[in-house]
Amino acid sequence: MARIVMKFGGTSVADVDRIQAVARLAKREIDAGNEVAVVVSAMAGVTNRLEGYVREISRLFDLREYDTVVSAGEQITAGLTAIALQEMGVDARSWLGWQVPIHTDNAHGSASIAGIDGEAIAARLRTGEVAVFAGYQGLDPDRGRITTLGRGGSDTSAVALAAAIDADRCDIYTDVDGVYTTDPRIVAGARKLDRITYEEMLEMASQGAKVLQTRAVEMAMRHRVPVQVRSTFDPDTPGTLVVDEDSIVEQDIVSGIAYSRDEAKITLTRVADRPGVAAGIFGPLAQEHINVDMIVQNVSPEGDATDVTFTVSKSDYDRAIKLLEEKKESFGYQELRPDQNVVKVSVIGVGMRSHAGVAQTMFRALAERGINISVIATSEIKISVLIPDEYLELALRTLHAAYGLDSG
Amino acid sequence: MARIVMKFGGTSVADVDRIQAVARLAKREIDAGNEVAVVVSAMAGVTNRLEGYVREISRLFDLREYDTVVSAGEQITAGLTAIALQEMGVDARSWLGWQVPIHTDNAHGSASIAGIDGEAIAARLRTGEVAVFAGYQGLDPDRGRITTLGRGGSDTSAVALAAAIDADRCDIYTDVDGVYTTDPRIVAGARKLDRITYEEMLEMASQGAKVLQTRAVEMAMRHRVPVQVRSTFDPDTPGTLVVDEDSIVEQDIVSGIAYSRDEAKITLTRVADRPGVAAGIFGPLAQEHINVDMIVQNVSPEGDATDVTFTVSKSDYDRAIKLLEEKKESFGYQELRPDQNVVKVSVIGVGMRSHAGVAQTMFRALAERGINISVIATSEIKISVLIPDEYLELALRTLHAAYGLDSG
Repeated sequence: MARIVMKFGGTSVADVDRIQAVARLAKREIDAGNEVAVVVSAMAGVTNRLEGYVREISRLFDLREYDTVVSAGEQITAGLTAIALQEMGVDARSWLGWQVPIHTDNAHGSASIAGIDGEAIAARLRTGEVAVFAGYQGLDPDRGRITTLGRGGSDTSAVALAAAIDADRCDIYTDVDGVYTTDPRIVAGARKLDRITYEEMLEMASQGAKVLQTRAVEMAMRHRVPVQVRSTFDPDTPGTLVVDEDSIVEQDIVSGIAYSRDEAKITLTRVADRPGVAAGIFGPLAQEHINVDMIVQNVSPEGDATDVTFTVSKSDYDRAIKLLEEKKESFGYQELRPDQNVVKVSVIGVGMRSHAGVAQTMFRALAERGINISVIATSEIKISVLIPDEYLELALRTLHAAYGLDSG
Repeated sequence: MARIVMKFGGTSVADVDRIQAVARLAKREIDAGNEVAVVVSAMAGVTNRLEGYVREISRLFDLREYDTVVSAGEQITAGLTAIALQEMGVDARSWLGWQVPIHTDNAHGSASIAGIDGEAIAARLRTGEVAVFAGYQGLDPDRGRITTLGRGGSDTSAVALAAAIDADRCDIYTDVDGVYTTDPRIVAGARKLDRITYEEMLEMASQGAKVLQTRAVEMAMRHRVPVQVRSTFDPDTPGTLVVDEDSIVEQDIVSGIAYSRDEAKITLTRVADRPGVAAGIFGPLAQEHINVDMIVQNVSPEGDATDVTFTVSKSDYDRAIKLLEEKKESFGYQELRPDQNVVKVSVIGVGMRSHAGVAQTMFRALAERGINISVIATSEIKISVLIPDEYLELALRTLHAAYGLDSG
């Protein structure tokens, strides 16, 4: 017997048939003797429609009212799912954010969960009742208004509830059947991972964001909630378990290879090479909420000046260029060289902490294919390189083979 | 300066454009120096869609979950209306049933309002903030679950809130511009009434149900809330005020003529004429929740038996016939004569309390047209007759003229 949280996204509850299929999955866990809590998103398309109404009326809308409007989507699914379970003879009730309550901060539209008292819910689970939670929503600190957790927040709801009711596992049902060593649409030999650590999952964000919200992974890591990413449409196949490092007996050095197309490279040439220059450039960018990811600084041959290269997300690119051109005088660079045709490729694995030569394997493999690296960034469990975007597929296949990740 | 509740039904908030039009109407009252509370229904079609989902999943559904699902419709409209008002520079916030809270009993799906503490709301209205209420919903006595008031319950919400905040007027905006002396689609000379009493409005239910819920009228009468029925699409024309009898200076003897097609007549011939026979027949019908409206009993020429005629609503007709046929032995009648081709026409007016001859005018006018009356029922302010349905239009026009109600 286990206590399980099952979370279903919008495509998994897209219509009445799908909601009934979700209820059957929950009933199967109940029939197997488990205690079950279900977390549901809005039916596919509903949140977009409601948000569309809001934006049609106002560009700068009151986020408290926005939350009132969009939270109705999950409310509807929660009620319908409870009815579907009851119709199958399973005791069930829906729980809205304010009913639990799921306490959040005051940041309407993108609130953070502050706390959930799970004891009353847990007591009802023990009686065999399925708790069906409306995902993505909570109650503000004044306990008067509905908050929402931001798009995709139902993953976070599920993990937070799993922590609050001390669940043995939080299953995130989605339209893929797990986390892969790399994008299987690009690399035919990509393998589904049985297990991955929280830290790796966070670094896999560029791939992982599609299957699991970063905030949900952070919360799972903090509360040590075992999370399983698995398929709604192929529920008999085990998915990928996201767990503590200690739970993985045999750890590969490299677990996966992620990539991000959302990078743009900017080089400022012949910036005066003196202390405080970096702060002079990156301070104003930060003030404009332009997030700088990778940074490299090359001393120019003359020695008196330096070339500074960095990346920003494509959505910030236009604003960054505008700011840099306006500040050309004060920044004191010679030339601005922009490049949007770049992609970031990252090799990820907690095993690289204890293994040397991981970076060297990467650089050599890419060099053998004639792929030029313009920027390198590393963390304890990740090496990222910026390469021309036309080489993305080749780089992924090359690295996947170089680290022995290919299946078969 | 007045404190006004403005209630808008589903067609008045059918889309974003209409919601913005509603906000403009509310702003106009604010600009005129009034305090304004708005009560909104779900956007046209939304409640039906949500109810359709529920019925697709289950025939005998949990009404608590049904309430959770369908109440989302008004929640959405309330938030959108508040945003539309804010966009016009008007301070506004939405209020859901559980937020006010609107206390109801436990009868999910058709709850009655038990009480509303309007003081906090009233205090905010005094600051110029518009309160936008989700109609049709409340909070159960355990304060844990959402209740709904039954279809059309938003009228009741509006009147109850008007009473709670001590409003000067409750304007029910709808797609007709008021209450008419009779159905203007049938009688060209039908006139819009400037004023009508609560009691008359209740009796006009057959016409009035379309513009104003009976429960809302009863509540308005109990709390002496002046209600105005007026058009969303022609807001410059005053509607019909539903008020206390004392507020009407010059009272017509007859205010209006209503009709109902929802009647079926059943005659049982040669029922034994002895005490307790009526109870023997109508008791079993009541037990089956079949509502009997009009009743007449004619002693048969032989004197030892009587013919009993009564009416039931068309929706109860089949069940009534089945029951009567099953019980033929025990009821001891000779023949069952059913007739669905009947219509009830009612002449209504508080003035008839103090005027004789009102009934006589009716009977004579109908007789002159050769219209046969099969059943008569009267109350203090109403005379109803059952006639063959083919005479409906003729009867309405005849009576409308006979009581001097024609315009011009």
